Formats: sequence, structure tokens, C-alpha cells
Amino acid sequence: MSDKKLLNYADYLNLENILNSQKLKSAEQGKPAHEEMLFIVIHQVYELWFKQILHELDSILNTFNQNSIEESDVSLAVLRLDRIIEIQKILIDQIRVLETMTAMDFLEFRDYLFPSSGFQSAQFRILENKLGLTPDHRIKYGNQDYKNPLLEAGRKVVKKAEDEKSLFDLLETWLERTPFLKFEGFDFWDQYSSSVREMLEKEVEAIRNNPNHSTEQIAYHLKEHEMATASFEAMIDVNKHNELIEKNKKRLSHKATQAALLIFLYRDEPILHSPYNLLTRLMNMDELFTTWRQRHAIMVRRMIGAKIGTGGSSGHAYLQKTADRHKIFSELADLSTFFIPRSTLPKLPGKIKKNLGYHFKS
Amino acid sequence: MSDKKLLNYADYLNLENILNSQKLKSAEQGKPAHEEMLFIVIHQVYELWFKQILHELDSILNTFNQNSIEESDVSLAVLRLDRIIEIQKILIDQIRVLETMTAMDFLEFRDYLFPSSGFQSAQFRILENKLGLTPDHRIKYGNQDYKNPLLEAGRKVVKKAEDEKSLFDLLETWLERTPFLKFEGFDFWDQYSSSVREMLEKEVEAIRNNPNHSTEQIAYHLKEHEMATASFEAMIDVNKHNELIEKNKKRLSHKATQAALLIFLYRDEPILHSPYNLLTRLMNMDELFTTWRQRHAIMVRRMIGAKIGTGGSSGHAYLQKTADRHKIFSELADLSTFFIPRSTLPKLPGKIKKNLGYHFKS
Amino acid sequence: MSDKKLLNYADYLNLENILNSQKLKSAEQGKPAHEEMLFIVIHQVYELWFKQILHELDSILNTFNQNSIEESDVSLAVLRLDRIIEIQKILIDQIRVLETMTAMDFLEFRDYLFPSSGFQSAQFRILENKLGLTPDHRIKYGNQDYKNPLLEAGRKVVKKAEDEKSLFDLLETWLERTPFLKFEGFDFWDQYSSSVREMLEKEVEAIRNNPNHSTEQIAYHLKEHEMATASFEAMIDVNKHNELIEKNKKRLSHKATQAALLIFLYRDEPILHSPYNLLTRLMNMDELFTTWRQRHAIMVRRMIGAKIGTGGSSGHAYLQKTADRHKIFSELADLSTFFIPRSTLPKLPGKIKKNLGYHFKS
Amino acid sequence: MSDKKLLNYADYLNLENILNSQKLKSAEQGKPAHEEMLFIVIHQVYELWFKQILHELDSILNTFNQNSIEESDVSLAVLRLDRIIEIQKILIDQIRVLETMTAMDFLEFRDYLFPSSGFQSAQFRILENKLGLTPDHRIKYGNQDYKNPLLEAGRKVVKKAEDEKSLFDLLETWLERTPFLKFEGFDFWDQYSSSVREMLEKEVEAIRNNPNHSTEQIAYHLKEHEMATASFEAMIDVNKHNELIEKNKKRLSHKATQAALLIFLYRDEPILHSPYNLLTRLMNMDELFTTWRQRHAIMVRRMIGAKIGTGGSSGHAYLQKTADRHKIFSELADLSTFFIPRSTLPKLPGKIKKNLGYHFKS
Repeated sequence: MSDKKLLNYADYLNLENILNSQKLKSAEQGKPAHEEMLFIVIHQVYELWFKQILHELDSILNTFNQNSIEESDVSLAVLRLDRIIEIQKILIDQIRVLETMTAMDFLEFRDYLFPSSGFQSAQFRILENKLGLTPDHRIKYGNQDYKNPLLEAGRKVVKKAEDEKSLFDLLETWLERTPFLKFEGFDFWDQYSSSVREMLEKEVEAIRNNPNHSTEQIAYHLKEHEMATASFEAMIDVNKHNELIEKNKKRLSHKATQAALLIFLYRDEPILHSPYNLLTRLMNMDELFTTWRQRHAIMVRRMIGAKIGTGGSSGHAYLQKTADRHKIFSELADLSTFFIPRSTLPKLPGKIKKNLGYHFKS
Repeated sequence: MSDKKLLNYADYLNLENILNSQKLKSAEQGKPAHEEMLFIVIHQVYELWFKQILHELDSILNTFNQNSIEESDVSLAVLRLDRIIEIQKILIDQIRVLETMTAMDFLEFRDYLFPSSGFQSAQFRILENKLGLTPDHRIKYGNQDYKNPLLEAGRKVVKKAEDEKSLFDLLETWLERTPFLKFEGFDFWDQYSSSVREMLEKEVEAIRNNPNHSTEQIAYHLKEHEMATASFEAMIDVNKHNELIEKNKKRLSHKATQAALLIFLYRDEPILHSPYNLLTRLMNMDELFTTWRQRHAIMVRRMIGAKIGTGGSSGHAYLQKTADRHKIFSELADLSTFFIPRSTLPKLPGKIKKNLGYHFKS
Repeated sequence: MSDKKLLNYADYLNLENILNSQKLKSAEQGKPAHEEMLFIVIHQVYELWFKQILHELDSILNTFNQNSIEESDVSLAVLRLDRIIEIQKILIDQIRVLETMTAMDFLEFRDYLFPSSGFQSAQFRILENKLGLTPDHRIKYGNQDYKNPLLEAGRKVVKKAEDEKSLFDLLETWLERTPFLKFEGFDFWDQYSSSVREMLEKEVEAIRNNPNHSTEQIAYHLKEHEMATASFEAMIDVNKHNELIEKNKKRLSHKATQAALLIFLYRDEPILHSPYNLLTRLMNMDELFTTWRQRHAIMVRRMIGAKIGTGGSSGHAYLQKTADRHKIFSELADLSTFFIPRSTLPKLPGKIKKNLGYHFKS
Repeated sequence: MSDKKLLNYADYLNLENILNSQKLKSAEQGKPAHEEMLFIVIHQVYELWFKQILHELDSILNTFNQNSIEESDVSLAVLRLDRIIEIQKILIDQIRVLETMTAMDFLEFRDYLFPSSGFQSAQFRILENKLGLTPDHRIKYGNQDYKNPLLEAGRKVVKKAEDEKSLFDLLETWLERTPFLKFEGFDFWDQYSSSVREMLEKEVEAIRNNPNHSTEQIAYHLKEHEMATASFEAMIDVNKHNELIEKNKKRLSHKATQAALLIFLYRDEPILHSPYNLLTRLMNMDELFTTWRQRHAIMVRRMIGAKIGTGGSSGHAYLQKTADRHKIFSELADLSTFFIPRSTLPKLPGKIKKNLGYHFKS
């Protein structure tokens, strides 16, 4: 009698709405296709997870948009990135569920969906923008703005996310403000640079003296190594770094790059635990989006081959390209090029270590 | 302008409904708890997957409710069970997402949810009923009917599923109708029984002569072995089998049990591929529900300890018990007790093999 | 010519040894069974991973065996536990590989293995002992000492691990030494106890007023709740706690339990990050061993049914019992019973917060 | 006393050898690096799994090297591919274990390993050769033969595998021999071609009339579509197909390609279940090797950045390229381009259906 007045599981979760939102187009057309249900349900699940990821991402953006960022803020951001990462693993794994639908099953209802398409997921575009994918960095498909296929309402919120500060931007600012780069009386960069140069020279020796290789092979590898050396010199030299930024070959500022490198190198200092965790989580998240795009591309290829997708584009090739190119934090991963063995790391003077105090005030 | 008229991704998926169905009780009460969003979203995702599982299960039930079941019907049922299985793996894996919420995070909004509870998921109860869990086999909690906590509407559909033929029932009938048990001029049961008795005697020898064991240990293991022998004899003897059914220690009829055993033993015959696949998928599905309940129990224990759940029951202990006892097809898994090495299997006479023809008509 | 003198991948990894250590007994007996290779290889892989887990565990035990344990020691232990945890996930997942072998495949070579058995894995026994499983807590099988089936050499090292301080012991000592329990001028326990008692009373109210429940059901749940209250009182009262220890119902000392609870409750304090991470990793590790045993038990049941295992014991039932009972750190998981919402947590006075610097000097 | 004479777990598994094959170079050099153990153990585990994969693959190659291949042979091959696939999932997942080692940990012992390298895994090269990767299709690194870095003994067995018939070759022959292509009195290819041409024309219409697209975009997509049409015509026309083979753009013969397509299209026919399962397993295996290479590349990049690998090559870029190009069965996946909805599939005349009994006698 009175059970409607108490909170009930079904009401709390709005199951009335959630479970009655699957309208099969094939059924509407009088040719119900059993598999269309899966197609709808899995995409709804994706969108629910996207909503959750955005919920976490927004809270992280808020945190890094503050003037003063405490150590506990960073540590909370890490926990929320951990949640995003666990969700991403599910996004990837559940592709296996969709793969239980074969290409021929899909063809039974594909035509009814035209021209709707996954390219019209406003939430995913918002997510990309909030992470820091800029319109310039996007792979184009069909020579049009990526917002065109969206509905009016979607276009607006996606555009808004395009204009706001992204996680990339806020991370850059936060890194630039880290106090670790000014060490009075201790020239970290000088010492670090010498250590790396020494390591690079040792590598050249190793290549030259590799008894498994012919003269030609050695020449080949030396050439490869020169590129590594050049990229190291570019990091040391702010002007070279800025040139690369102008040429769109780098994005993260010189100062932020140095701060990130320091965090990696001295990650054993307690005060750097949370910053280090933050950077690794960002790299993990980036890698998982890459993996997701790759798996998605493989699945689409298998499902529709070289056919055009429901959005009117050869989806597979496009998705594969985005996997390689829509990374946001790949420059963090590249920093490992400049790592040196812990044992050759310049020791921090006691005074500096003391200044690495707990509260991370900028 | 005209984009409303064409099918759009957002409209097709009813995203308006789906993405606006997250109403945080903590926010309504003026104390928004960040983690409540995850709690709502993950449960909605669970319910969407339950809907999909029911969609597949219903199609399988329809198939086995027909008078004539073709080989291709069995094979299609296998593909749909494969899909259910992939979904189950996701159900289990995504517990990891919920585990990123700590016990203390949960306590921030737990009180607002009272008395709603996962026990009120009508879809999960329907699923259990359709698989074949009977009211008699259910673990009781709180001395009440499991349908009581449900809303009126939910109670009805759950009751309906209780009254209909379950997958267990239909499988039993299908097994009983298999023609393989009547082999003219070839007494399979006699030959098979001797083979097993021989194997059991060899095992007794092995126990008696185990040089690692003391007299006491040998006695201990012999006692254990007697139970195995007794359960074998019970399977051979229809009367003993029926006694066990009456005592609620077995459920699958004698004839269906024999048919299932035959399918396992002669699974290499092409005609038995699909039946064999069907039985293994049912066991896989059963195991995955067991794993899901165990992981769920562990998670609940970690989240609320020995506290009572939002449904007013100490959830952990109850869930743990259901993991062990709410299995449907465990008698299939038990049949491996009666397997014998392929090389000692009675050979099928050519004439019988010929009758194992393609179309599986009963 | 000279390639033998340089380090080579094959030599570095001793592949000569590793890849020639698969001797099929079935082949020796003239009846090669294709599947025996998998049986050997997967067990060798298990043993390699056990070696790696022991390598990590030993380094953690060494750390906690020191007189002074720095914050960075705890943080390094957490990283190594993370590695153990990732390995455990693999141990579980690779059961799926073994499950591609059917029961009948296994029967083809099972007899040749007699009486060797997984019970003879010395490394796994050492691992259990080093974690803290005592001979008293072990489930018995066959009325014999668990070391009996081992070879002489194995028995010795397993016994040695039995006698040394385990991770459980060292954790207990470390917890007991935490300074957080003595807060001058701030009676934490008093304040905390009142908070919990308040919460428990609110729960009693909730049970009494649950409009979904009949009088009988309410009585049932109140009885359940009494047990929760009793266990809370036992934690507050050192004497009751010690009684439970004497009755073998608890194991972790009163002081260590309190310290663990404090770490959970105040885990947001930066200085408690690593201790909190340590406790959660121990619980994760425990859960994963539980999951591994459960999956192992399910697999064995499916492979040999109620038959006796190659070790002469009905493996399935034994393994299932160990899953429930061979937990080491379950008392940590149980502490969530005593969690209270963050917002009702007694605030730490500034002076105490400052003192939260144990074993960590900045 | 007598326990040495009975088979023991440790002896059966050669644990003496297996567990004493970890010799840390860093320890030999007096600077023991804790993480080197993991590096050795995980590579040994990889090699053990490679051995197992080769064991399965060899049995499959033997099967397809026979003159007469029964339906049960195909079905057994499918089961063994399923095992390989489960192993591959583990190979991928256990990268996560290696990732618990950081770049800086690795640098502590990297120099001691020079110049040994994963490029020297003879088993992996054998595996690639047996699957069907030819020297011509291999991505070159460092301008040298891929066998050069191997030890003499390894080079020999790898070369041998290069010269033998690969799985690709044997599959091609098996497909070419399927009787399905000669259907008396039923011109399948004519009917099928018309169906596809109809579908392609409908797609052109859809592109032309897409109201979301501008004239330019439509032109762009039409151009893309032309390529799809061209590739379809190439499949229909044996001469065009052979031209592509000569240009190294295709590899699978025209006849085998047609047979594979037929198997996909008529996979619902019971007799085609096992062939269909075979083809999908081969695609799955291919995809999983691709995923493994991609994950491996990401991991290497993170571990050593753009540094040269221990083998003297910038490993990351090379590995990434092999992921895209070392596929063997990608032409099977591409066939989905030519799928048509089941409902538009030419119906098989009853007589032909009856003849669908190749290599299977009931």
C-alpha cells in the first residue's frame, strides 16, 4: 500500500526510464533484428560511463583551476583518475561483448540506423576537449568540422568545452608553478645535463663496438642515435624547445617539461609521491584511450570491413589514425628518454630536501 | 535546420532519458556526495546488462519451448549463451570500478538510500527464476518471501517468471528426449558401468598402496572414496537416483542425467558438438554467477563490514551463502566424476554412429 | 664465431635449461598425451611466478624486520605489493588456459602422475607461511601434517619459514609501534566510541521502523544487529578482545587493531597515505589469494569431479575450504564495520596533526 | 627414505632446473638490482608459453599437412587455437606485471644485459615463420637479416621453419580444395555478385543524399566509396586479384579467398560450423598478436623512451611497425567488406545443401 512513499531501488535508479529507452528501429520497420538490442544497450552503457568519467574529470579540473593546490588535492585527483582508469578498462573489455555480434547480424539492421553514428556522441567530444585535444590536433574526416554531425544542443556544449581550460592546460600551469626548479646554490640542470651527455656517449661507444653488427648497421644505428641526442639537446635548450612548439612538434612548455622530468627523477622523495602518481595516471589514461581506439578500430574493421560506416565515413581507417594521433600526454611518456640510472642522479643537498616540505603551496 | 528529422545518435539511444536519470539523494538533501554519482551509474549499467541478458535468455527459452529443436537451434542458443557469458565477465570486472569508492565515501550518503536495496532488483529475480532457481532452493533472509521487498509491479513479473518453465526445466526435457540412449543391440550402460567400476577399483588400489600415507591416512581416504563409489552407484541405479531427488539432494532426472553424461563422453562425434557446447556454456554461466556473487560478497564486506545493508540485512553473509547455493547446473559439473579416459570408452558400433545423423529431431 | 662470448638472450635466460625441462610421463610410457605438455608448462609457469612473489615478499619482510622503518620503506613495500597483486591476477586468469583442457583429456595421463600432487609445492607452502598462515590455522586434509607430502629438502625450507616471523607478525609489531594512539589532551577513543554508539543506535531505529518488515522480521534483524554491537564493544574493550584471541576468534592484538582502524579513519592525512596504502594492498592480496583458491577449486571440480586428486585427496572440497579459511588479513577487512562517515569523525587538534610525523623526517 | 623413487611434483616439473635458472647479471657485477629478477622471470615465462604455443601450432600444422582432413580434424584444430588464444591473452595481460618496474629501475641493470635482446628469441621467430610471416613481409631493422642476432643453433631452426609450409600456406591449400565452389546448375557467383553490386549502389545513393553533408563532403565520400567498389571488383575478377598478388597487395589466392567468403556467408550450415570457427580463430589469433605488439611497443616506449634498446635498435618504433604489418590473416578480416545481409543471401538449392558434406561421412 504505502510502499510508493519509501525510497525504492527502482525509483532511486529511475529504472522506468532506463529500461524503457530501447526502441529497436528494425522492429519499428516490421523486421525485428534480435541483435539490435545489444547494439542499443551497449551504446547506452558507454554513454553512462562517459557521464561518469566526465563527473570525475570535472572535479579534477575544478581542483586544478584553484589558485592554491594542496598536496591532498593532488592525492584526491589521483584517486579519481584511478577510477577513470578502471572505467576505461571496462570500456575496452566490453568490446568483447559487441564482438559476439557478427558482421552479418549487424547488416540486418545497419541500414535503419543511417545516418546516425558514433561520431555524434557529444559526451565523447566533450571528454576529448576537456582532456586537451584541440581542433587543430584532431584528425579530420570528410573535410568537415568535427562538431557538424552533432545536434544543435550538443554542438553548443562541445564548443563550450573547446573554449575552456583543458586538463592539459591546467597541468601545464601547475607544473610551471612547482618550486622545485629554483634550487639556490645547486645547479641541477648543469649536473643533470652532464650525466645525460655521459650516458649518451656511452651509448655511442656501445653502438660502435657491437660485434654483432656490420659497418653499415653501425652507421645506421649511429644515425638513429643522433636523433636521440638532438631531442635531448632540444630539451636542454629553451630556444630549440620553443622552435619545436612553433612547428607543432611539441606542445608542453619548456618549464613544465623540466618540472615533469624532475618529478620523475626524484619520485622517491615523499613530497613528490602524489605529483609522480598524478603524472603516471595521466599517462595510463592516455594509453588506455589509445588501446580503446585501437580495439575499436579492429572491431569496426571486422564488422563492416572497408564499407562506409553508418556516419558515412570509412570508420576503421579514421579510428586507427585517431589512436595514434589523439594522444594528449604523450610528451610525458617521452620523458623516459631522458631518465638516467638512480645511482647517477645528482644528490639533493640537505637544505633543498628540507624545503621539499609537505604542503605543496605554489 | 532539418537535422531533427533524420535519425540521430542521441535520439536513437534516448540519451535525453538515459543521461538525465541520475538524481543524487545527497544533493536533494543539500549535502552532495561526489561518490553517489558512481553508485547510481554503476547500478544503472548493471540493470541495462540484466535487460540484455534477459533478452538473450528469453530467445533461448523460446527455442527450447518448441516441439522440434533443430541442430541449428542448439547452435544459435550456444552463441547467445556466449554473449551472456561475455556480459557476465563484465559484470564481475566492473566491481573493480565500484571498489574505487571507499567505505567512508559510501557512508557519506548511505543513510539517504534507506530502505532501498539491491534486493529490490526485479530483473535479477526474474533472471534467477528463468534460469531455474525455485523458491524452495532460495536462501532465505529475514524470514520473508524474496518478493516482498519488491514494488507491486515488480512482484507480478517476478511471480510470472517463477511460474513459467525455466531453462533448467526445458533443458531437462530436451535431454530426456535425446535419441542417443536407445542403442539397439548395444548395451551402453552395461559396458560403461563395468569401465567405471574398473576405474574405481584401480583407485582403491592406489589409495591402499600410497607409500606416502600412514595406515590412518589410508583409512581416511578409503572412506572418502566410498562416498564417490556410492554416488556412482546412485547414478547407475534409477531408484537410488530418485531417492536423492526426493531428499532434495539431486534435481536433474535420471534419464536427463544419463543423456548429459553421454553427450560429455561422446562429445567428439560431430553431431554432439552443439549439445556439448550447450552444456559447457551452461556450466560456464553458472560458474560466472557464482564468481559474481563471491566478488560481490567480498566487496560488500569491505564496504560495510558486518553492518546491516541498506536493505536491512547483513548483506555479506547472505550473498556468500547464495554464491554456494544458488547454482542451477552444478549437477552437470558433477558429472565429470563419472568420466573415464577416452581410450577406455566403449566404441560405438558403425550402425549407431550412422544414426547420429545431422538433424537433431526428437 | 665469437658470438658465444657476448651475452646472448638465450644464455642470459638459461633457455637451454628452461625449455628442456618438459618430460612427458605419458611419452615415457609410450602413450604420448598431447595435453600433458600444457599441464607441465602451466605448473612451471606457476612455480616461476611463486619464486617472483617470494622474491618480493622477502624484501618486504626484510624491511619490516628493521628497527627503524622510514616512510619511504613503507612506500617501497607498497610498490612491491602492487607487483605481487599484478602477478596474482595473472595466476587467476591463466586458470582459463588450463580450462581449455577437458576432463577427458586429463584422464589420458592422470594415472602416470600418481602420487605427485600440487600439495607438494614447497614454494606455495613457504609463501603461506611467510604471509602468516600458522600450522594451527591450516585446514587439515587426510589427518597429516601438511609438510609430509614434501621431499626432504622442501620440508626443511618450509619448516624454516614456519618458524620465522611472518608478514602478519611484523605488521602487528609495526602497527603497535605507531605513535598515533597516544594523543595528549585529546581523548580520541572516547570521542570515537560515542560517535559509533550514536551510529549504532540510529541503525537500531532504522530497523525498528522499517515499514517493509513485519514484527518477526524486525526481531530477526535486531538480533543480527546485536551481534554487530557486541563485536564493536569487543573492539573497544581490551579484555573482551583478548578473550576472543584466546578463543581463536581473533588474532590481531588490540593495540594493532586500534592503530589499523586509525589509519583507515584518518587516511586523508598525507603522513598516513603510505600506511593506508599498505593496509589496502594487504587486503587486496588476501582477496586475490581467496579468489585464486575459489577458481582453483571450481576448476578441479570440473576436471575431476568428486574423484580423488593425484595427491590422494578429494581436492575440490579441500581447496574450497582453504579459500574461506586460509585468509591472513581478514581482520583488516572487518574493520570497515567500525567506520563512520568522514563528516562525523573527531577533528584532530592542530598540535596533533603536527605530530603526525612518525618515522618521517623532512 | 623411499620418497625419491616415487614420482614427486618437484621432480616431475624439473623444479631443480626451473627455479635455479635465474642468474642476475647485476649481482654478478656486485651491484644487485632487485628488479632484475622480475625481468628474468617474466621472460622465462614468455618463453615457456611460446613453447606451448609451438606445441599446439605444430599439431595443427601436422593436421593440415595430411592428404585427407576430416571434419573432426578441423574441430580439434579449433580447440587448439582456442588454447593458443587464451595463452595470448595472458601474454598481453602480464605486460602489466612488467610495467610495475619503472624506467629508472630498469636503468639500474640495463647496461649489464648488452647486447642481448628480445630480438634474439628464436622461438618467437619460429612462431612467426610457422604462422606464415615470410622474410619478404618482415619489417627490416638495421638493414640486416632478422636471423643475424640469433645464436648459430637458433638460426638453424628458425631457417628450417622459414622453409617449411606455414599455416598460411596450408590453410590456402585447404580452402582451395573445398568443394563448395562448384555448384552444378546454380551460379552462385553470378547471384552473389548482383547482390553485392545492388548493395554498393544503395550505398552510393545514401552518400549522395546525406543531408548532413556539403557537396564537397559528398564528393570526398564518393571517392572513398569508389575504392571499396574497386576492391570488390578485384575480388570478383581473378585477373585483377592476381595483379594485386603480384604487386604484393594481396597474398591469398583467388580461389581460397572465394572459399573463405563462402564459409563466412553460409556459416549457419552445420557442416560449415567448424570451418567458420577455424577462420574466426585465425583472425582472433592475428588480432591478439597485433594487440600484443602494440602493448609491447607502448611499454618499451615508456620504459626506455627514444633510447636505443638493448639490442641496439630504437625498439619502440620498430615494434609499432610490426604491429601494423606483421599480420598474417588480415585478408580474412577484410572479407567482411563483402558480406551482405543474411536475408539477401542467395538460397542454396536443396540438392546442394545435401552435398555440403565434404570430408565428413556420417
